[in-house]
Amino acid sequence: MRLRKKPWGDNELNTNDRFIHNPEENKGKWKEIFGNDNPIHIEMGTGKGQFLTTMSLLNPNINYIAIERQTNVIVSALKKGREKGVGKNIVFFVADVKELLNYFEPEEIERIYINFCDPWPNKKKWAKRRLTHKNFLNLYETLFSNGGEVFFKTDNTLLFEFSLNEFADKGWRLHNISLDLHNSNFEGNVKTEYEEKFSGKGMPIYRLEAYYKK
Amino acid sequence: MRLRKKPWGDNELNTNDRFIHNPEENKGKWKEIFGNDNPIHIEMGTGKGQFLTTMSLLNPNINYIAIERQTNVIVSALKKGREKGVGKNIVFFVADVKELLNYFEPEEIERIYINFCDPWPNKKKWAKRRLTHKNFLNLYETLFSNGGEVFFKTDNTLLFEFSLNEFADKGWRLHNISLDLHNSNFEGNVKTEYEEKFSGKGMPIYRLEAYYKK
Repeated sequence: MRLRKKPWGDNELNTNDRFIHNPEENKGKWKEIFGNDNPIHIEMGTGKGQFLTTMSLLNPNINYIAIERQTNVIVSALKKGREKGVGKNIVFFVADVKELLNYFEPEEIERIYINFCDPWPNKKKWAKRRLTHKNFLNLYETLFSNGGEVFFKTDNTLLFEFSLNEFADKGWRLHNISLDLHNSNFEGNVKTEYEEKFSGKGMPIYRLEAYYKK
Repeated sequence: MRLRKKPWGDNELNTNDRFIHNPEENKGKWKEIFGNDNPIHIEMGTGKGQFLTTMSLLNPNINYIAIERQTNVIVSALKKGREKGVGKNIVFFVADVKELLNYFEPEEIERIYINFCDPWPNKKKWAKRRLTHKNFLNLYETLFSNGGEVFFKTDNTLLFEFSLNEFADKGWRLHNISLDLHNSNFEGNVKTEYEEKFSGKGMPIYRLEAYYKK
């Protein structure tokens, strides 16, 4: 979706100190950037930022990196973070998931959140674009090196089924699988903007945790 | 469900040579009973027998054992098998799943089918009765010894979610997970009586394969 450029966007990018202009320069140095040894969790496709900004406020001892492909979208996440008063434990940058290895050394990240990513529903043609396709799992395995986890949510049944099988086929351990998250016993779920809107219509939200260990 | 005793039932039990009256006597001797070294697959809760009798006709090089707890139900499966002309590669007996180890030595069985078993929906109180509860998985692990697989179908969302997590938590490898079997690419599905009736109402059927390797 191409969005009209927000007139206040450039100002947000230039004045918000949580925005990282040249993230590739921090490769291998993220602990220095955060100034501590706390675990680093990233969200891929952070959108308007409700999920990760909330997480950063709830968990001050975790460092968060919000990654979003579209500059014109991340400005909304930055604005939301600023208005909610997020701390030094979250930063934002613009990048494409395919290029994740340009920004991180193996073992820098412990967890990846993928929330309501594009399901690319035309199975044969677009499967490789899904962020849980085995090619992406290979990329995450390189990043995790010594072990790590993906926490995944979607409202799309076929994408969830596809993802369960991709993780299982690659030998990742699945855990806490929910076929109807909002009516489950799962505690502490933080909703994305999309999730709030969508689940209001009564459709189930799917969730899984997948652990990779070399 | 208590069913009225079928007046022709005793005759079916006494005259159908596919019925095993004292299965515990065959423990460790199933290959002799079948007269060959073909793999042995069992179905637990075979009901009226459509699934396993069809499978036995489709796959003459697999040996099948249909296990059903209720004598008054297995007589229908026996009758169906007889009418369909099943061969020597299928037998039937009455038993409770809990007592499976009375009937088989480790490594005699390669695959267990569980189709539309009782979901025992009151979570806390009855979870242990579900045939995919970790206690049952422990039992199957003993049976499989060197490795084996469970093929599982249900129409119950909570039971499927529960089962995915039980298998995953025990470290079994999941494979071919379907969240809507009848609208999936899965080929060669053989329907149970219940599945035919239920899926006609348009509700999804769930399916998974779980592999155990010591």
